[in-house]
Amino acid sequence: MTAWNVLEVMGIVAFSVSGALTGIRSRFDIFSVLTFTVITAIGGGVMRDVIIGNTPPLSFRDPTFLISSCATTMTIFFTYRRLDRYQNTSRFFDAIGLGAFTATGANLAMVHQLNSLFGVTAVAVIAGIGGSLVRDTIVREIHYVFRREVYFVNAIIGASVFYYSQLYLPSFWPLYLCFIVTIVLGLCHIKYKWNFPALDPDSKKVVSGDHESG
Amino acid sequence: MTAWNVLEVMGIVAFSVSGALTGIRSRFDIFSVLTFTVITAIGGGVMRDVIIGNTPPLSFRDPTFLISSCATTMTIFFTYRRLDRYQNTSRFFDAIGLGAFTATGANLAMVHQLNSLFGVTAVAVIAGIGGSLVRDTIVREIHYVFRREVYFVNAIIGASVFYYSQLYLPSFWPLYLCFIVTIVLGLCHIKYKWNFPALDPDSKKVVSGDHESG
Amino acid sequence: MTAWNVLEVMGIVAFSVSGALTGIRSRFDIFSVLTFTVITAIGGGVMRDVIIGNTPPLSFRDPTFLISSCATTMTIFFTYRRLDRYQNTSRFFDAIGLGAFTATGANLAMVHQLNSLFGVTAVAVIAGIGGSLVRDTIVREIHYVFRREVYFVNAIIGASVFYYSQLYLPSFWPLYLCFIVTIVLGLCHIKYKWNFPALDPDSKKVVSGDHESG
Repeated sequence: MTAWNVLEVMGIVAFSVSGALTGIRSRFDIFSVLTFTVITAIGGGVMRDVIIGNTPPLSFRDPTFLISSCATTMTIFFTYRRLDRYQNTSRFFDAIGLGAFTATGANLAMVHQLNSLFGVTAVAVIAGIGGSLVRDTIVREIHYVFRREVYFVNAIIGASVFYYSQLYLPSFWPLYLCFIVTIVLGLCHIKYKWNFPALDPDSKKVVSGDHESG
Repeated sequence: MTAWNVLEVMGIVAFSVSGALTGIRSRFDIFSVLTFTVITAIGGGVMRDVIIGNTPPLSFRDPTFLISSCATTMTIFFTYRRLDRYQNTSRFFDAIGLGAFTATGANLAMVHQLNSLFGVTAVAVIAGIGGSLVRDTIVREIHYVFRREVYFVNAIIGASVFYYSQLYLPSFWPLYLCFIVTIVLGLCHIKYKWNFPALDPDSKKVVSGDHESG
Repeated sequence: MTAWNVLEVMGIVAFSVSGALTGIRSRFDIFSVLTFTVITAIGGGVMRDVIIGNTPPLSFRDPTFLISSCATTMTIFFTYRRLDRYQNTSRFFDAIGLGAFTATGANLAMVHQLNSLFGVTAVAVIAGIGGSLVRDTIVREIHYVFRREVYFVNAIIGASVFYYSQLYLPSFWPLYLCFIVTIVLGLCHIKYKWNFPALDPDSKKVVSGDHESG
């Protein structure tokens, strides 16, 4: 199952990059950045494995995933200044990680008897969003947690692509197709950003969903 | 197992109402309210299923529960102004949700070999409190998380009623009895509120547990 | 499996002491201290059991662990003033709890087919750190969560000691050896404290990891 493992490691590396950047910006020391990054990069996969009953989780059985995450974090910690010049670095890697985990999560759900469109989508969303939910809860970026709307939509579309393409396409093509579709959607989101309407409890009228200024 | 499913859906709808109200008051946009509400309405059941080893959790296998939660949230989002006039709406629905999840949790524990008074109670408490613990942690209502003392007591009493009544009553009577007892206790709590003593670390004397003003 | 149970209860009692002290200092009332303490004392073990697939978790099957935690909390609540005079009480009991959970976690991993050095270490770290991560997240001591670096290192060293000693030593010796080594390391840490370097995102230079003043 090599193609699956390649995508899983790719997802862990991508989430490690954006996790390490968040940790460094929150002024954690080197060991804390390492802990924080590993929790967020491995977290989504552990939640996924526990939920589908695939215990002990993969990353407790095979050290590859943990080692990839640690190595990536150390690299980022020492090349931080160069990467930080690009504004969207963190979101770019989030998009890649989301693509990879959506694909591997959808595939794993099929293998573990959750072979309905609903089951595949639910597991893919948990796997793709889980780690970053934990990360944002820890550093208290409350608004960002709930501004992931488009990430959700991307994961749902990606998982649907996986589900329908695996009915027709052989071998690992559905996995790759899901991966690419989710990433392309994520990159589009970085360029063309949408917001959803929010109710303002005081003025009792609909306002823009832009929490960043609040 | 229809009666069980009806109660489970009733619990999810009730927690969706109070979750949506919390989300709207925290000024989330529509998609964030949806995400937040689903997490808190489904969360307790997922924790319960993972803990008793009932994986994948019910709400990953059957879309009914997710759809009920989404439909309720959308309804609340667009009828918010009318509901918000009543002060205790949110607590009223919390009480119903707690009753439903205490009953279904206690029943599920029996089915999954946790058929002691202790096992039944522990699972019922997790199922009833789990979702709201997650909700309050996300919106950072720290004090409220730990002011749920009476909720705990209600869930414990409800689960005990379930455990002892199932020794004598046939069919679904224990389920309904537990549901009603827990709700009645919850409604009483809204009217007649107790507090527990707290130690004040500075003055070193016992003070009132009313954190709301602090 | 008596020796294992003794260590597990010892760990729960130790974490209940430090949990209760944290709760009292955060000015929770008596019921909230009880809830908070039980969550943090039982939490690490529940996470461990869920991850290795040992469901329902031990503390849902056997009330001993919950009762130990409640009894300890009540004792602390009423003897608080005497204990609070000693500055490092909370850390001292954290060190004992970490030692006990590292040992029982490592042993349980072996029993559940995670019998590699990596698997044993990963489970021991989750069991040892899990409860206190939850505790610090609830009371929002963000910096302290990530200043547990030496706790991590201690758990890793303790688990390695367990793994290598069980290859040569019979019976419960590895369990005790791991317990003692981890505690001694923890007590040394309280006396001789190290910090790790942190990157300061503004000044772009390495600064001390001492977040306490920040």
